[in-house]
Amino acid sequence: MNCSVARTLDVVGEWWTMLIIREAFLGVRRFDDIQERLGIARNVLSTRLQALVDRGILERRRYQGRPERFEYRLTEKGLDLYPILVAMMRWGDRWTAGADGPPLTLVHQPCGHETAPTLSCSECGATLHPRDVRARARDAAAEVAAPGS
Amino acid sequence: MNCSVARTLDVVGEWWTMLIIREAFLGVRRFDDIQERLGIARNVLSTRLQALVDRGILERRRYQGRPERFEYRLTEKGLDLYPILVAMMRWGDRWTAGADGPPLTLVHQPCGHETAPTLSCSECGATLHPRDVRARARDAAAEVAAPGS
Repeated sequence: MNCSVARTLDVVGEWWTMLIIREAFLGVRRFDDIQERLGIARNVLSTRLQALVDRGILERRRYQGRPERFEYRLTEKGLDLYPILVAMMRWGDRWTAGADGPPLTLVHQPCGHETAPTLSCSECGATLHPRDVRARARDAAAEVAAPGS
Repeated sequence: MNCSVARTLDVVGEWWTMLIIREAFLGVRRFDDIQERLGIARNVLSTRLQALVDRGILERRRYQGRPERFEYRLTEKGLDLYPILVAMMRWGDRWTAGADGPPLTLVHQPCGHETAPTLSCSECGATLHPRDVRARARDAAAEVAAPGS
């Protein structure tokens, strides 16, 4: 399918996959720690981790020699999933958090504030609203309507 | 699971679901049109649409009386999925697009430019990099490491 959303879902469109990636961003990189935090069967976790390594999202690195122990670290391709993860977190905070409110808050260390990450236009800096954005087919054969219009 | 990412995946963490939402953002709202564009079995599409209506992401609206015809429109909760969709599109553009390049480009109509949507800090406006952000548990029992650090 010639669509970047579909292709992204091919790589990360699976429940456990995004949760493993979440753990990696939270600094949880060792098999036993991930397994314990997610409560996922060891064989399922093995398969998922291997798939993420095969797809270049995680790399497996030895951190101990005897016995051999490995950890899983995000590659550049994996780190680049951050906006997807944060966008999911924000939506969940807004629409699924119960009376207790969002479980995590994010602090932007360079400015020191709690941040509510926002999708902005790279050109003018304004917050992007779906009705303000028009998707254009690159081959220009078919311009499509402004999303949500 | 007390995590907004996990809860979001509960709602939209399914391949067809995000593609139906993509179609809605592109202005494709009628059953037959969605079915044709996605090449999805009619019964599968019916089930997915109904689930999205049940979860408050889409609303079903009659647009014709005889015979009765309905279309599916994004609710506010559904429109709010836009950052997730755009983040997926951007990642796919960068990491999965072949030699042909990204299939779609986005034009920000208020400023008139092709835009590369960016995740920004709500407080200082800077682009958010995972290593600059620290996740903090709201109950402050456990501060967790800066993602990716």
